[in-house]
Amino acid sequence: MLSESSSVNEPSKKVALIAGEGQYPFLFAKAVKKAGKSLLVITFKGQGNTELAELADEYHEIPITQFGKLLEILKNSEAEEVALAGHIRKNKAILTARPDRKTISLWRKLKTRNDDEILRAVAREIEFMGVKVISPTRYLPELLTPEGILTRRKPTSAQIEDIIYGFAIAKAVGELDIGQCVVVKDRMVVAVEALEGTDATIRRAGTLMKDTVVVKVFKPSQDPRFDLPSVGLKTIESMIEAKVRVLALEAGRSLFFDREKALSLADKVGIVVVGVRYE
Amino acid sequence: MLSESSSVNEPSKKVALIAGEGQYPFLFAKAVKKAGKSLLVITFKGQGNTELAELADEYHEIPITQFGKLLEILKNSEAEEVALAGHIRKNKAILTARPDRKTISLWRKLKTRNDDEILRAVAREIEFMGVKVISPTRYLPELLTPEGILTRRKPTSAQIEDIIYGFAIAKAVGELDIGQCVVVKDRMVVAVEALEGTDATIRRAGTLMKDTVVVKVFKPSQDPRFDLPSVGLKTIESMIEAKVRVLALEAGRSLFFDREKALSLADKVGIVVVGVRYE
Repeated sequence: MLSESSSVNEPSKKVALIAGEGQYPFLFAKAVKKAGKSLLVITFKGQGNTELAELADEYHEIPITQFGKLLEILKNSEAEEVALAGHIRKNKAILTARPDRKTISLWRKLKTRNDDEILRAVAREIEFMGVKVISPTRYLPELLTPEGILTRRKPTSAQIEDIIYGFAIAKAVGELDIGQCVVVKDRMVVAVEALEGTDATIRRAGTLMKDTVVVKVFKPSQDPRFDLPSVGLKTIESMIEAKVRVLALEAGRSLFFDREKALSLADKVGIVVVGVRYE
Repeated sequence: MLSESSSVNEPSKKVALIAGEGQYPFLFAKAVKKAGKSLLVITFKGQGNTELAELADEYHEIPITQFGKLLEILKNSEAEEVALAGHIRKNKAILTARPDRKTISLWRKLKTRNDDEILRAVAREIEFMGVKVISPTRYLPELLTPEGILTRRKPTSAQIEDIIYGFAIAKAVGELDIGQCVVVKDRMVVAVEALEGTDATIRRAGTLMKDTVVVKVFKPSQDPRFDLPSVGLKTIESMIEAKVRVLALEAGRSLFFDREKALSLADKVGIVVVGVRYE
């Protein structure tokens, strides 16, 4: 390797971002720029985050089915790190566009087509090229849920028991690769999340039982670089609607968006939020 | 023990039934009478199955909170076997009536208040008195799901794979005492049943994905005498509404009500139903 391919002084280092939707890639892009790094952004046609173009030093919008193109851009960019952030809608895109050879070969190699499996395969191919796939939280440590009671209200001893019970159940459910979230009450499972998502799970629990405890954890089988469980203001709003009392998150291994606003809303209605360090 | 408390000739043997709601206790009562036995029925106020009074040789309707009374009736009846059949709505009754001493002591001894735990405790107390708690299926073997493909349509090889995958997931979920039913597709879990019940789980799966496989199993932690998973005509109707393709049940350890009608409806719409012998 010649010195031109590895940057010597930190500030000139280039960071690449493969961006999906939502605020996550945007927050990441800002954090990278704030750290004084050069930023390359790759987004996908039809789900592009156009504000990112303004922050990026280099910006590409490609069809999601052009994985060969993506690898080529990364290689030519000489970025040393790449992060994947934001939700990428795969199904629609894959049905409507013609994939390149690299995409077809990647798709054929997959054992399952779960999001996590796809992202893992993508990361593997990128790392084969010598570009390190990092977690976006490397530049956004403040997004990680801190440990401890995060609201003014504290959990009761019965709620603490349910948090412990819920953690054990959620971890076991995660181990089966089902979902990240369970709702419990009095050591009984009220609802389990699978494909429907956390908000729908919380709302369903609300129709079945009140004053429950929501537990959302990191799945043991997940890759922490691109699949951390995440909550935000909307989670608290769903909890209010469903009359849920407690939200327990995995400290250090979950993303908490709009934390200040979410916790202030939780405080207003007396909801308890805790970050639990696991293992 | 004197001979008066144990019947010598089979036909005069008395069978007791603690009856909840639905067709199950009714089918049981008919089967007991058909077997030439004497039938004692105990039902609960507000949820009584009055047609049962006509079939019973002895009929009692008591408040659900009078467990002491229930034990007394059983003891005096000299029944040697008792079965619990049909759904008993516990919550409402417990909130509205005054419990007797025996009920309070039973309630206090419970570690959890899951249905299964309550029924187990009730069965234990009854057996202490020397009355054997039997499965209603002893008199209704035809209700048990048989092994094999029960419909005209057979599962595809992809569906067979999903049945096997779904069985493993459902057993693991059951092991956690969460629920009996999961909906899967392409080795992915679409929905998991907890408190909402099987029909709601099937309908939810339908909003998330089509052409799925429903798997309903016996929970390893259950007591097969009073908590077998059950399906019926309504299950097939929910599947049609949700565009589910396959129903896999545990052969020998699940109840299939209205089987003829249900299978004929399944055949009409091309649904596959299979009974799988487990382990």
